[in-house]
Amino acid sequence: MRKRRPWHEVATRLVDVAAGREPAELVIRNGRWVNVLTREVVAGIDIAVCSGRIACIVADAAYCTGAGTRVIEAEGRFLVPGLTDAHMHVESSMCTITEYVRAVLPHGTTAIFADPHEIANVFGLDGVRMMAAEAAAMPINVFLQMPSCVPSAPGLETPGARITAREVEEAMSWPGVIGLGEMMNFPGLAGNDEQMHAEVAAAMRAGKTVGGHYASPDLGRGFHAYLAGGPADDHENTREVDAMERARRGLRPMLRLGSAWHDVAAQITAVTERGLDPRQFILCTDDVHAATLVREGHMDRVLRHAVALGCDPLVALQMMTINPAEHFGVARDLGCLAPGRYADLVLADSLEEFAAGMVIAGGEVAAEAGRLLLDLPAWAHEERFRHSVHIPRRLAAADFAVPCGDADGTVTANVIGVLENQAPTRHLTAELAVAGGTVQPDPANDVLPLALVERHRGSGALVNGFVHGFGFTGDCAVASTVAHDSHHLLVVGTGAESMAQAANTLADSGGGVVVVRAGKVAALVELPVAGLMSGERAEVVAGKSARVVRAMRDCGCTLNNGYMQLSLLALVVIPELRISDLGLVDVNRFAHIPVISQIRKERSEWHS
Amino acid sequence: MRKRRPWHEVATRLVDVAAGREPAELVIRNGRWVNVLTREVVAGIDIAVCSGRIACIVADAAYCTGAGTRVIEAEGRFLVPGLTDAHMHVESSMCTITEYVRAVLPHGTTAIFADPHEIANVFGLDGVRMMAAEAAAMPINVFLQMPSCVPSAPGLETPGARITAREVEEAMSWPGVIGLGEMMNFPGLAGNDEQMHAEVAAAMRAGKTVGGHYASPDLGRGFHAYLAGGPADDHENTREVDAMERARRGLRPMLRLGSAWHDVAAQITAVTERGLDPRQFILCTDDVHAATLVREGHMDRVLRHAVALGCDPLVALQMMTINPAEHFGVARDLGCLAPGRYADLVLADSLEEFAAGMVIAGGEVAAEAGRLLLDLPAWAHEERFRHSVHIPRRLAAADFAVPCGDADGTVTANVIGVLENQAPTRHLTAELAVAGGTVQPDPANDVLPLALVERHRGSGALVNGFVHGFGFTGDCAVASTVAHDSHHLLVVGTGAESMAQAANTLADSGGGVVVVRAGKVAALVELPVAGLMSGERAEVVAGKSARVVRAMRDCGCTLNNGYMQLSLLALVVIPELRISDLGLVDVNRFAHIPVISQIRKERSEWHS
Repeated sequence: MRKRRPWHEVATRLVDVAAGREPAELVIRNGRWVNVLTREVVAGIDIAVCSGRIACIVADAAYCTGAGTRVIEAEGRFLVPGLTDAHMHVESSMCTITEYVRAVLPHGTTAIFADPHEIANVFGLDGVRMMAAEAAAMPINVFLQMPSCVPSAPGLETPGARITAREVEEAMSWPGVIGLGEMMNFPGLAGNDEQMHAEVAAAMRAGKTVGGHYASPDLGRGFHAYLAGGPADDHENTREVDAMERARRGLRPMLRLGSAWHDVAAQITAVTERGLDPRQFILCTDDVHAATLVREGHMDRVLRHAVALGCDPLVALQMMTINPAEHFGVARDLGCLAPGRYADLVLADSLEEFAAGMVIAGGEVAAEAGRLLLDLPAWAHEERFRHSVHIPRRLAAADFAVPCGDADGTVTANVIGVLENQAPTRHLTAELAVAGGTVQPDPANDVLPLALVERHRGSGALVNGFVHGFGFTGDCAVASTVAHDSHHLLVVGTGAESMAQAANTLADSGGGVVVVRAGKVAALVELPVAGLMSGERAEVVAGKSARVVRAMRDCGCTLNNGYMQLSLLALVVIPELRISDLGLVDVNRFAHIPVISQIRKERSEWHS
Repeated sequence: MRKRRPWHEVATRLVDVAAGREPAELVIRNGRWVNVLTREVVAGIDIAVCSGRIACIVADAAYCTGAGTRVIEAEGRFLVPGLTDAHMHVESSMCTITEYVRAVLPHGTTAIFADPHEIANVFGLDGVRMMAAEAAAMPINVFLQMPSCVPSAPGLETPGARITAREVEEAMSWPGVIGLGEMMNFPGLAGNDEQMHAEVAAAMRAGKTVGGHYASPDLGRGFHAYLAGGPADDHENTREVDAMERARRGLRPMLRLGSAWHDVAAQITAVTERGLDPRQFILCTDDVHAATLVREGHMDRVLRHAVALGCDPLVALQMMTINPAEHFGVARDLGCLAPGRYADLVLADSLEEFAAGMVIAGGEVAAEAGRLLLDLPAWAHEERFRHSVHIPRRLAAADFAVPCGDADGTVTANVIGVLENQAPTRHLTAELAVAGGTVQPDPANDVLPLALVERHRGSGALVNGFVHGFGFTGDCAVASTVAHDSHHLLVVGTGAESMAQAANTLADSGGGVVVVRAGKVAALVELPVAGLMSGERAEVVAGKSARVVRAMRDCGCTLNNGYMQLSLLALVVIPELRISDLGLVDVNRFAHIPVISQIRKERSEWHS
């Protein structure tokens, strides 16, 4: 792989090739040029490439061809600019950047704009720097957005690290850092929180793009106040009206098709039916699991989806090529096939039934027919990033007991209620028995013990609570060090022994997701990198993840996506009730509340 | 006038207004929002403004209105983003920046992207700095492009100053410098001239826009080589195919409607008939005389013209608002009406018959019904910029004699042939008589003496030659210190006495344009600022210029634009024959040639 170089460093070579004074390194003959600048297809086109960039696009590049020139006959196939994912989190795939790239490059992706928000919650600026180093080594463009909200909810949780405005300012000067990551603290920005404004200002001063995240259906004053604060895009919009009101106000709507997010259909009608100029619209994934990448693809999947919804393929392509490139200020380097741009392109037989044939990245043939042709060694992360689960002792069953002053009787407990297919939870209460001075779960009513184990500072802190909705039966436990956003260790189960075993297993593997059933490890995805990412290939991660899902089903879990529900139980920015290392959090009031709200002598049923 | 401040410096105030916590300074009620982001008109809209920027755009901004809020009732009029001239030279109007702004602001212009190429030929970087200082004081956005080609033709002429690559690099860091000015040396860039590439590289490293100028109908290898060198726009395209081939390759076509350039009609069909996405297209003026500004307007004139050609007004508006703003990377500040952007807008009754009603610039009501409401004092240029005509002694008739070794006989002279309505000249030859050792002009055949007087260094150098095509009769002379691109003093006339008088008059006035007839100054436009610009208002300049044109007609000149033809006689980059301070220039060969090519004893007729 060759390092990508700035246009001006190779300009004289490009000029020589275009002028016919020097031969090109690569010439692609007779393609149909998918021109996202003019939104048209121009047939009978040759592209000459050298130094990783496009030297010229002409009707006949025979004059650019010398003895050493590699010639690829496109035979009338479409020449499509490399696809771009404008907003996404690599960590969501549980893969490293390298393995993510290995998975998506054969699908035609040649640029991703990644917000390493998860790693920042574990390792802070140092983690972002680690991601930047790996990003810079990739054969495709991996741009980073500097995470803006770490912790997501100051005062309600303690992540592994904090990002300061000063650090944001520093990162703005790093190569490959393209802007500020999603400004999730929308009440903070709209409320003139000093740090949030300082971060936005740092990005603006650096001339970089401010990512947005306005996760509310309210389009009233709070929305307008947020807009006035400076964000330039948003991916939390879900309705047509959301997309339209954002596009009109320069908050570029990013329409998501992630593994779990299906937000394109409801919004693309703003273009296909309402007739808005599509230049403001962008398609992205946000969060994609390894299994989706392996089985369904990446931006090619999003393209097929948009086309199936009635979007003109050229318009859909603009939304994942030139639109994001212009949004992030890199349209002189990528996002279209034009002289001087990186030679990042895809040969495809059809735009309607898009499947990436040959993929050329930085002027090199990188993949063909779904197979990566480049040598892409696995990334060797420094050891310190592989030791992020700091639990000072082996956990035992007794650690998961909820003590109560009285030896017997009942208590009213605050219980997190999981809602099927939804990210918010409900704030339930349950009457639970006390036995031997310990509050008892109520498995018959699906009220199970839940614990959050502090894992960043090795404090040994452990918060116990209760959760309803998983439906586990028998002796089992599920644990995860992916626990948005502060990524402590979460464990839920039917028995304290299994919970201890599950947590200890992850302490041993350096993080991951585990299902323990009847005293045995039934499934395990090891995630040694920050407790968030595997070092293995996407197929392997997908396979192990599938086994976790199966094992959870075997344990009685009937939720569509039980693992994701578990990993969101600590997400203290989404209502109603969450758990953090500081205790239970009532997200409606942004306040801590106790697990036990009332103690009685006699027992009754639990209520919602 | 209030200084324009960066968004991030006023963000918390905008947020407070949008949230309803603080009142706006200005609220515009019930307008039709011309949305160039989505290409639609949204009726019933209020805009709240504070700190010079838009705080929010909402259906009802009553909640932003306090006791001190100025309220403007739009009464259903269109709210149009301020118009933008994306490529232009202020000096072409013979007005200072301040007077240009005074003239165009009431027409709805709130941003210009000016290339101070002319002043740079007189005062170099210092001249650009002077323009930058004036630009920064304006109530509208005046961005500068750093001139790239001074001199235009190294070795063929000596301008007052040179611009180096180092200076280009320096200027890239100045506030308000938006990019590199038009890269006119297209053979140089395509031929890998070191300085040209260094200048482009400086702009690219700074993340700024590289202006182009490819003045050839050839779309072959030279075109492609030029593209590979890095320019991002071009305004020299004149045909539909020029526009299309540029747009497809990311060389944004700028379609000119200047005073003399009428290049929109032939090219806008690429959008209106061929259906290309208009996002790449930009409308501009390039060069406009004061008279055009005063009588016909500025970008409003271009808008009406484009609409008359069948262009959708919303598309034409995109081409002079958001398209240039995105092109120059300032779309977060201007080019659309959206939160955070400068409150630069125009109230208008009609988009089809566009006439600017009220103009709001930086949140202040700046003009209404064609009348400037702001206090805009004339700019006081430092004295040194008002003394640029350095001619060490009074010129006399004898200075304009073309000596010949022989006392009598004939010579063959190389003669510049002016072509009606065209910028190129013809290379003619004429048989001219020699009398008393001096080559005689041939007024009967319209072969008149022409001289270029060096005026920058006070060298006293004077180059004599002959020109055909002006048609002057009687005793007269016309002189100008506007003499593209090196701006020496040019004088043409029927008699040496008048030529001396004309030149001396300009030496006295510090530069300008003068017509001398029968020993009297028949018309004079004083241009004391660099010999290029008047300090007077556009109406005054237009009036004086009109008198020059009339006086030239009175002298027998039948050319449509005789003054412009004179001012281009030294433009050594456009074929075929020109004059410079270094002698006659054969532009086809980029070489100097003598005035007298052959000496004979007997006289004959002149030939082309």
